[in-house]
Amino acid sequence: MAIKLNPIGLIRTPFKQPIGMPIQPSGAKGVKGTIEIEPEYSDGLKDLKGFSHIILLYHFHKSTKCALTVTPFLDSEKHGVFATRAPNRPNPVGLSIVKLLKIESNILYIENIDTLDETPLIDIKPYVPEFDRPSRVKTGWLETKKGNVFLKKSDDRFRSK
Amino acid sequence: MAIKLNPIGLIRTPFKQPIGMPIQPSGAKGVKGTIEIEPEYSDGLKDLKGFSHIILLYHFHKSTKCALTVTPFLDSEKHGVFATRAPNRPNPVGLSIVKLLKIESNILYIENIDTLDETPLIDIKPYVPEFDRPSRVKTGWLETKKGNVFLKKSDDRFRSK
Repeated sequence: MAIKLNPIGLIRTPFKQPIGMPIQPSGAKGVKGTIEIEPEYSDGLKDLKGFSHIILLYHFHKSTKCALTVTPFLDSEKHGVFATRAPNRPNPVGLSIVKLLKIESNILYIENIDTLDETPLIDIKPYVPEFDRPSRVKTGWLETKKGNVFLKKSDDRFRSK
Repeated sequence: MAIKLNPIGLIRTPFKQPIGMPIQPSGAKGVKGTIEIEPEYSDGLKDLKGFSHIILLYHFHKSTKCALTVTPFLDSEKHGVFATRAPNRPNPVGLSIVKLLKIESNILYIENIDTLDETPLIDIKPYVPEFDRPSRVKTGWLETKKGNVFLKKSDDRFRSK
């Protein structure tokens, strides 16, 4: 059965095009953006300001094709899409953990944001190390590649044609 | 514009009822479950087995009402829903980071799972500390409460009537 979601707001960032963007929040250190929450959802922001980091779930709205195996930005080999963070997923939902700087009414000021400008926001969750930080982690094919995330920028490989 | 998602599989766990459940993976240490991926998406699992932990996005399928302020399991006061992990969100999408034990064909064996049995799965992403582990984190209202997550179980407050 299909699940229907309605965006709760828009993420505003300096990235107008899906090319030359950071490919993860860790590659977007210091990049500032805002989130404009639809006024009808403002009450849901109560007490969020005490959190230094928030988890954003959003729609990869420029990702219109889906592939089950992809060559991610960090490698030259194909991997299953669920073993990557590529946008062209069966359900194009993205996840980024960003720094929350301040909240003014229904506008959130954030840092380390790696999404395209005008990305539709699906959900905000507080980041809580006790829930979200497992230990003794192994990262498969990414083990030797992930250091490049700090330098690597996106190209047009996931662009919709 | 509404976003339409189609589940890619089902999460199977020992939790048949939304009452008396762990309220986060950290409260579900050692709880085993499986994920049955729809065969049409099997190819997307290639190379996932090298990852020790995966991020699950899923549908809070028993959460039919939405509230903008909620009294979460870990507190007796109301907070904005986006400052909590409560299921009754405007877009009822849940997130859990679980341990991946092994993969056999289209079945994933997982540990520390805190979802209801038969939860529809939306996405799997590899957990990567370099992407997903911010430092110097503050957790607002949860600061003094979150230790209880290891003991606290759910009651029926978020149940659909």
